[in-house]
Amino acid sequence: MQKGEMLYEGKAKRMYSTDDPNRIIVEYKDHLTAFNAQKKASMEGKGHLNNLISSIIFQALKERGVKNHFIRMLDDTHQEVLRVKILPLEVVVRNITAGSICKRLGVKEGLKLQRPLVELYYKDDALGDPIINDDHAILFGWATEEELKKIKSSAVKVNDLLSEIFDSVGITLVDFKLEFGRTQEGEIILADEISPDTCRLWDKHTGEKLDKDRFRNDLGKVLEAYEEIWKRLSLSHEGGKEEL
Amino acid sequence: MQKGEMLYEGKAKRMYSTDDPNRIIVEYKDHLTAFNAQKKASMEGKGHLNNLISSIIFQALKERGVKNHFIRMLDDTHQEVLRVKILPLEVVVRNITAGSICKRLGVKEGLKLQRPLVELYYKDDALGDPIINDDHAILFGWATEEELKKIKSSAVKVNDLLSEIFDSVGITLVDFKLEFGRTQEGEIILADEISPDTCRLWDKHTGEKLDKDRFRNDLGKVLEAYEEIWKRLSLSHEGGKEEL
Ligand SMILES: Nc1ncnc2c1ncn2[C@@H]1O[C@H](COP(=O)(O)OP(=O)(O)O)[C@@H](O)[C@H]1O
Ligand SMILES: Nc1ncnc2c1ncn2[C@@H]1O[C@H](COP(=O)(O)OP(=O)(O)O)[C@@H](O)[C@H]1O
Ligand SMILES: [Mg+2]
Ligand SMILES: [Mg+2]
Repeated sequence: MQKGEMLYEGKAKRMYSTDDPNRIIVEYKDHLTAFNAQKKASMEGKGHLNNLISSIIFQALKERGVKNHFIRMLDDTHQEVLRVKILPLEVVVRNITAGSICKRLGVKEGLKLQRPLVELYYKDDALGDPIINDDHAILFGWATEEELKKIKSSAVKVNDLLSEIFDSVGITLVDFKLEFGRTQEGEIILADEISPDTCRLWDKHTGEKLDKDRFRNDLGKVLEAYEEIWKRLSLSHEGGKEEL
Repeated sequence: MQKGEMLYEGKAKRMYSTDDPNRIIVEYKDHLTAFNAQKKASMEGKGHLNNLISSIIFQALKERGVKNHFIRMLDDTHQEVLRVKILPLEVVVRNITAGSICKRLGVKEGLKLQRPLVELYYKDDALGDPIINDDHAILFGWATEEELKKIKSSAVKVNDLLSEIFDSVGITLVDFKLEFGRTQEGEIILADEISPDTCRLWDKHTGEKLDKDRFRNDLGKVLEAYEEIWKRLSLSHEGGKEEL
């Protein structure tokens, strides 16, 4: 697999072409950003850990029937994935209230929701990723009604599977963000990454935060938390371990 | 109908008890507020005009099968209405893009939408009336799934009826905000007001703004615009005229 020209660079990853137009190489960067990139840092080893964690999770989801872009881990910071056209939507699933929703709606942090809450955001950094409803996505052409249905039911299924996976290693899945893309054939599949950068993960017993909130809220030991997530997942899942 | 003690005062109206616990008296104030009450003014006669306009519209909606709180106009600034428990939701219907949605989602003003766009906002001044989706309303207990369904289909029906009513007097209904409430019997009915304070109304031929945007954007001739709306409506609708 030849790493070709850089196609684009985001806040956390770089995408490269390959000799196969349907496949790209993702490079996980050490950069961390928060609050719509107003807060920035670089932490050596973060990209490696997220590559490992995201690989384990996407592999596990694939084995459980959730079609996604993951093909294989290539080395410490690189993955081979299917190239898709990302829909300009961030799909957030929440099991417990935390973060922006508490401020925005005046609800307490840590409320267990009766069922998973699904939110859509319009992925646009310049606008600050505003929250939207289904009608906005449909009427402004960001997804069709049918695609939204599939995306939402996939998001709820991913939540079920991930909640179980994390629970089995002593971690509570509080919330997370997904991105979906269209393949060459027009199929909608799960893409992007699933890592402590994109999930809220609390230790089931101590409540300790083991995710990007350690960076957002200056709690320290950011890398140690990411490493803890990776260690626990890799004990029970082969996906990311094999490739080391 | 005896005007009793003041029950509560909002930005645009005061509510008074009557001798019937199921009915209240609404007093329309001359106050105008915009941008979550950061901009304020008082314009003599605004309350009178909104009372007239809202009476005509609620009467017309009632005659067309939309159950609502309106009973009758009492005098220049007072109405008798059914007392309801207002749901903490603002329901916005848009036919053409204008106002907050343009800024929030980076869309141009004046785009004709393929079909009406329905938005829900959590009615909470302190939080700035944040936009929400159905899941928020259901999971935080602001309305049941069934109530939301009824509210939304009612909102779309109101949009159809109002678009026709305004169109027949040379006005384009761009967007508007509704509030719904629960009656003593638990039925959801339309309440609050429908006026140039709560609608965007553009002259069909000249495009001139005939609503609160004249106040928001310092366009001048605010009262003149409200009066124009009342005059046009009262020519074809009896509701508000009879009582003058
Ligand atoms: N399989 C894929 N094919 C094409 N683009 C992808 C794929 N997976 C993720 N992307 C996109 O790659 C870009 C870089 O990722 P990232 O650094 O996380 O960006 P961002 O700053 O938008 O969060 C993003 O636009 C992301 O949506
Ligand atoms: N039929 C009704 N019964 C009880 N309350 C009502 C009814 N119609 C409107 N209200 C409420 O009366 C209050 C005063 O109205 P208004 O001055 O427009 O308030 P606001 O400042 O919230 O816009 C609002 O809370 C409104 O929801
Ligand atoms: Mg990203
Ligand atoms: Mg009001």
